[in-house]
Amino acid sequence: MNFKINFLLSTGRQSEVTVEEGTTLLEAAARAGAAVEGNCGGKGTCGKCKVRLTEKSTAAPTETEKRLLSAEEIAGGWVLACQRTVTDDLTVEVPGQSDAFQRKISLTEDDGDIEAEPVVRKIELTLDPPTVKDQTADLERLLEQLPRGLRCPHRLLTGLPQKLRQEKFSVTAVIGPERLIEVEPGQTGSSLYGVAFDIGTTTIMGSLHELASGKTLAIGAATNPQNVYGADVISRITYASTNDGGLERLQRKVVEALNAIIGELVREAGIAGDEIYEAVAVGNTTMSHLFLGVDPTYLAPAPFVPAYRRPEALEAAEIGLAINPGGQVVLLPNIAGYVGSDTLGVILATGLEQRRDRCAVIDIGTNGELALAAGGRILTCSTAAGPAFEGAQIKHGMRAADGAIEAVQIVEDEISLEVIGGTRPRGICGSGLIDAAAVLL
Amino acid sequence: MNFKINFLLSTGRQSEVTVEEGTTLLEAAARAGAAVEGNCGGKGTCGKCKVRLTEKSTAAPTETEKRLLSAEEIAGGWVLACQRTVTDDLTVEVPGQSDAFQRKISLTEDDGDIEAEPVVRKIELTLDPPTVKDQTADLERLLEQLPRGLRCPHRLLTGLPQKLRQEKFSVTAVIGPERLIEVEPGQTGSSLYGVAFDIGTTTIMGSLHELASGKTLAIGAATNPQNVYGADVISRITYASTNDGGLERLQRKVVEALNAIIGELVREAGIAGDEIYEAVAVGNTTMSHLFLGVDPTYLAPAPFVPAYRRPEALEAAEIGLAINPGGQVVLLPNIAGYVGSDTLGVILATGLEQRRDRCAVIDIGTNGELALAAGGRILTCSTAAGPAFEGAQIKHGMRAADGAIEAVQIVEDEISLEVIGGTRPRGICGSGLIDAAAVLL
Repeated sequence: MNFKINFLLSTGRQSEVTVEEGTTLLEAAARAGAAVEGNCGGKGTCGKCKVRLTEKSTAAPTETEKRLLSAEEIAGGWVLACQRTVTDDLTVEVPGQSDAFQRKISLTEDDGDIEAEPVVRKIELTLDPPTVKDQTADLERLLEQLPRGLRCPHRLLTGLPQKLRQEKFSVTAVIGPERLIEVEPGQTGSSLYGVAFDIGTTTIMGSLHELASGKTLAIGAATNPQNVYGADVISRITYASTNDGGLERLQRKVVEALNAIIGELVREAGIAGDEIYEAVAVGNTTMSHLFLGVDPTYLAPAPFVPAYRRPEALEAAEIGLAINPGGQVVLLPNIAGYVGSDTLGVILATGLEQRRDRCAVIDIGTNGELALAAGGRILTCSTAAGPAFEGAQIKHGMRAADGAIEAVQIVEDEISLEVIGGTRPRGICGSGLIDAAAVLL
Repeated sequence: MNFKINFLLSTGRQSEVTVEEGTTLLEAAARAGAAVEGNCGGKGTCGKCKVRLTEKSTAAPTETEKRLLSAEEIAGGWVLACQRTVTDDLTVEVPGQSDAFQRKISLTEDDGDIEAEPVVRKIELTLDPPTVKDQTADLERLLEQLPRGLRCPHRLLTGLPQKLRQEKFSVTAVIGPERLIEVEPGQTGSSLYGVAFDIGTTTIMGSLHELASGKTLAIGAATNPQNVYGADVISRITYASTNDGGLERLQRKVVEALNAIIGELVREAGIAGDEIYEAVAVGNTTMSHLFLGVDPTYLAPAPFVPAYRRPEALEAAEIGLAINPGGQVVLLPNIAGYVGSDTLGVILATGLEQRRDRCAVIDIGTNGELALAAGGRILTCSTAAGPAFEGAQIKHGMRAADGAIEAVQIVEDEISLEVIGGTRPRGICGSGLIDAAAVLL
């Protein structure tokens, strides 16, 4: 039997979803696109997935709820979304959780001196039309004007004759290092775009670039919607390897989030998604696996072996990314099971590999990674960071969103707090926690 | 509105199909898999698509029917399937047209001295399992045992970790010249199969081979089901370029026929379709285009330019061929717009390219091709053959099937006929026609 669940979001919007009996509210929220945090991935240990039922439930609170919610919360209709299965139509209030990404965006405005070296380029061509004396086939006619040895994907070959003739053999070839990517009728060399993504466990950042100049046209971000299946990478791996279709679901979720960001970016820049021919992504090794739908099971137990390490290149259509279907999707190589391509990005962006002195860079996210350059080599390691400080074991821990205490000082024997968004405190985030520990020592 | 059409086949079987009002009986027959000939592709010029309505139609015979059918035929309920659109439920009798392919099969039993040079091969591997001291990623662990530079398709990467561990890192890699095709758990090197197809305009021949030895395991054939859209290549090109979805329909038809043949071949040999990792096909240039779903429009008008000429290689899944989804499908290169890869096959099979004397080979099929070796080069040309002799303009012309007069002699002033199948004559095929012309001179 199916029931309707109507989620009232803090933005004032509503989102309704129909689910089968027995579905958890956490899962229903995920399907409705309602941002309910699920730090422990539904195990009932973190107590972060609080939602409020507008009509008090007839079901008694579970032992887990009694342990993790206050008596006032229970009396007020609050439940843990992971503990409640759907047995009736419901209206569910989701508390505000505006994201950290506006803050992150402010950090990424400097695209000063980056030189663009796109793997995709455009070549404008005016081919001689065939004649009885020159019956060269269409594909060969095109390829003889391009770098040698390019593959032509089957999908491109099928409609090639029409494309060549649409503008009387005036065409623009879009090529990658190994293959023909697209053939556009007419001379379109001036428009060529790429997107870059940092797929974080919690937050996904994206940026749109003009590939010829490297110029940044727009920046966007979104919460990684996989977070309802667990806040940390181990919970996600567990979800992917122990639930039927779990891997596919996590992959779809992250691609949907990337596609939503792409939608924003192209709107802002006034271009079409089809004009984007290259997407480059980094992420920790688990995120890279999940983004490509690659089984991450053996990342979790020792000896922590990734399925792949080398850079991957594939066609956008293979994973459903909303750029040109033939566009080149590139993932930078992973470094190890728990040090991903995002750390490689940090090393490249900071120029660590060119330092002659001893120097370390630290990337504190949901996972924290450290890279140390010394003695002509670079060593890397990682540990849990975000949920360790902000969720998993800290009762009032929360992410750096509106309402989070982010700084603590003692001024004339009085405790003084800085709260993100200047609102009443809702909890404390990692930097606030470290501050608090420091001033209390 | 939809109607049910029940086709009574000469084999005693029936085949029912539901079609929209206005569909022609020829199209309905195609959908029902009933072999109705349509030499002119529904233009109403050949008169070959005769079928009989079991209940006399209330509609008057069309001008075309009056011209192409006898008064007796019209009185007996015979109509031309291309002239009748569906306006009611109908039962339709389809006259016998058992195929020429049993005869063709008898010609292809000699696979004596062909040396197999498959592009696909298997490599059995026993990999060292990962340890804390050897955390090499799964893909790299596998690739370092294989020839350098192989691509790994995304589809293979996703499930690689499970495949490696299923038989404790004992696996068999199936590789093509440029890419990893499959990874099979365990040691499976002894089973590796390939299929070869000659995609004729009228008849499709297929054979199953053990790739290591080249041994032929089974042979099969089928009528090319595109024939309801026209008996000759020009009719097929016209159909593909002037009907919405026509190209896709012709492509699906031929792939379905190949898949039916593959089904027979694997049943006969007692293997699974998934064990077939290579398919090689030849055909005239139009058939090659249609098989890959490539737009053939510009083959028809001067200067008769193909979309591609070079050999094509793709994954079976890209065109829906029922071998291993990652299997390599190879088409030999076309020679020109009207001399296809089948002629290249004829040249290779007869060793024409090694002859030092002047020598010609002729391939008489629905199209006739001629290749002449002289002065160190080979010249080729082609012309319409089959329908020219057997259908299009010959009132009683028919293909070399049961009931066709295939030889004519004058013995003691009496005309003596040889009829295929030893039955009463139904018509006359190409060889009978040439014989008749010869004895009458």
